[in-house]
Amino acid sequence: MKILDLDLGDRSYPIIIGTNHYANAEILRKYIMGKRVAIVSNETVAPIYLEKLATSLESYDPVSIILPDGEEYKSLNTIDSVIDQLLAARCDRKITMIALGGGVIGDMTGFAAACYMRGVPFIQIPTSLLSQVDSSVGGKTGVNHKRGKNMIGAFYQPKCVLIDTSTLDTLPSKELSAGLAEVIKYGLIRDKNFLFWLEENMVRLLARDPAALSHAIFESCRHKSEVVADDELERGGRALLNLGHTFGHAIEAGMGYGNWLHGEAVAAGMVMAAELSCRLGWLPRADVVRVEKIISMAKLPIRAPASLSVAVMREHMAVDKKVTDGKLQLVLFKAIGDVILTDDFSEKFLDDVLADLRN
Amino acid sequence: MKILDLDLGDRSYPIIIGTNHYANAEILRKYIMGKRVAIVSNETVAPIYLEKLATSLESYDPVSIILPDGEEYKSLNTIDSVIDQLLAARCDRKITMIALGGGVIGDMTGFAAACYMRGVPFIQIPTSLLSQVDSSVGGKTGVNHKRGKNMIGAFYQPKCVLIDTSTLDTLPSKELSAGLAEVIKYGLIRDKNFLFWLEENMVRLLARDPAALSHAIFESCRHKSEVVADDELERGGRALLNLGHTFGHAIEAGMGYGNWLHGEAVAAGMVMAAELSCRLGWLPRADVVRVEKIISMAKLPIRAPASLSVAVMREHMAVDKKVTDGKLQLVLFKAIGDVILTDDFSEKFLDDVLADLRN
Repeated sequence: MKILDLDLGDRSYPIIIGTNHYANAEILRKYIMGKRVAIVSNETVAPIYLEKLATSLESYDPVSIILPDGEEYKSLNTIDSVIDQLLAARCDRKITMIALGGGVIGDMTGFAAACYMRGVPFIQIPTSLLSQVDSSVGGKTGVNHKRGKNMIGAFYQPKCVLIDTSTLDTLPSKELSAGLAEVIKYGLIRDKNFLFWLEENMVRLLARDPAALSHAIFESCRHKSEVVADDELERGGRALLNLGHTFGHAIEAGMGYGNWLHGEAVAAGMVMAAELSCRLGWLPRADVVRVEKIISMAKLPIRAPASLSVAVMREHMAVDKKVTDGKLQLVLFKAIGDVILTDDFSEKFLDDVLADLRN
Repeated sequence: MKILDLDLGDRSYPIIIGTNHYANAEILRKYIMGKRVAIVSNETVAPIYLEKLATSLESYDPVSIILPDGEEYKSLNTIDSVIDQLLAARCDRKITMIALGGGVIGDMTGFAAACYMRGVPFIQIPTSLLSQVDSSVGGKTGVNHKRGKNMIGAFYQPKCVLIDTSTLDTLPSKELSAGLAEVIKYGLIRDKNFLFWLEENMVRLLARDPAALSHAIFESCRHKSEVVADDELERGGRALLNLGHTFGHAIEAGMGYGNWLHGEAVAAGMVMAAELSCRLGWLPRADVVRVEKIISMAKLPIRAPASLSVAVMREHMAVDKKVTDGKLQLVLFKAIGDVILTDDFSEKFLDDVLADLRN
């Protein structure tokens, strides 16, 4: 078992990485505040993992809330339903909520915890690679709006993040790859050595080699923790974690939530960021090829769908949260392992990249 | 102009009390963070006050969002509509939102600001007495759920509260009285001298004497600020501000939102708290009479409606946010000016009070 501490003053918490320990009541007990817990999961994850967790927490009279599975249900309506179920079960301010599932479950449970009676404690038990390496850490919670992804939410930190790598055994391959997109991201934005390690070990990761996965998760969480500790509310450096995300959100929203996985869209988006950086003269062509290669190795897309028009993508990009005083900002490359948030690019170059990088 | 400072470390802000200054751009400018503002108001307040405010802030390219008027619209659906309008107007993270209206507008604008892109700055310009003396100060924001009042929300502080007593000139008498319920509350929970002053000056307040109103507002905001500065997140003393509110919420919810004004329900609730305290032997009968008298002087109800059953009230009280580990807690009197939060009362006495204090 490895433990990382995310240092946020009185909101600090541990990220506990291990195997076969997701239902370990001895560990969880320390982070449960009152006498009851409410476990939020979805129709896919619950049948596999919920019973064991609920049984281990039997003394906390657990309430189980099962949501439909998919990004398309990440909405204010679903939050309303979670809150309705909490109230129906007479959960009070001392309830501790537990997110058991992937990124969508974590984001929604965290936001419901942030809003329920103006805030109750919650714990993240991420069961997908993407949520283990990225979304469960750092306190970004929220839901989508039909006009844009994650437009409604809160910065709200969990009491702990409990990562159990054995839950990846049941993860569909497509979702394993989607998680690897965020792993690759850390290499691209701030750690050339880690990128090199990923290039050497991608085959092991795809084969779910436990030691390789554990190393990739630990390094990803370490990077995420460092960035968040420096800039919890994304006033500066945290925005760099959004490499590929503005493009990716436009692909996700443009195709309709639930059609492209978040990680897949981010993967294609990171290639777009590299390509635009190259055309601006900031990144050598060989590095664009290197970005495309590692993403392809992870069995992820390097192009947006041909059916998606530039106009539709631009429409979605215009409501990105990083737009400042009306100006779009993008995370672009200065080099591999060195990125910046900038509005210093030609709109025409951007349109060309969007048009050209489609299948 | 009088200024009170609410001391909350890096979330501190001023409460600026004056007359004919709600649209003073020189004052507001200091608290507007970016280049644009979004003013949220309702169908009743907007026709009277919006144009002057929007004109004075013309250089901030103001977006106006007009909501329907009434507690029954204080819902997640309305928040969704506010966010939709912000996105449609291309408001980014640098938008400053301004609440122009009573408590419902303030609570919803604050919650929308807390959630929009995970948080944007906002300013309170309360136009009702109730919002000026209570809800605009202290950062409680949120909406109702059909199962309970203010069940969904956030603690989220404004950048400033700008109180203009001249906006009370257009306030319906019923709402003036409703605001006086919260003013009386401060006397009852922590300031016998202020209660005495209110007993002497209630006629002037009802006649809207500017000096009397200004004094009552200043004293109320001073009390509220002191309590909130000590306990922002309501882990202790702040709960005492809820005198009469658990009873009041049950009346409001039981009668259907929008039928009883919040202040009216709290008024009857404070009498219930006094009566229960008396029956527990904690408060002399003469003090119950005194509570009833000051509330009657303010033209507020001292009884719940006869049509409301004890069972319905208890049902709503059971989901109160102060319920802890399943046990209902109430703010009760030790004496006039001295209240406590306690679960140390007999359920039968409570039921009797609910049954007896109906018209």
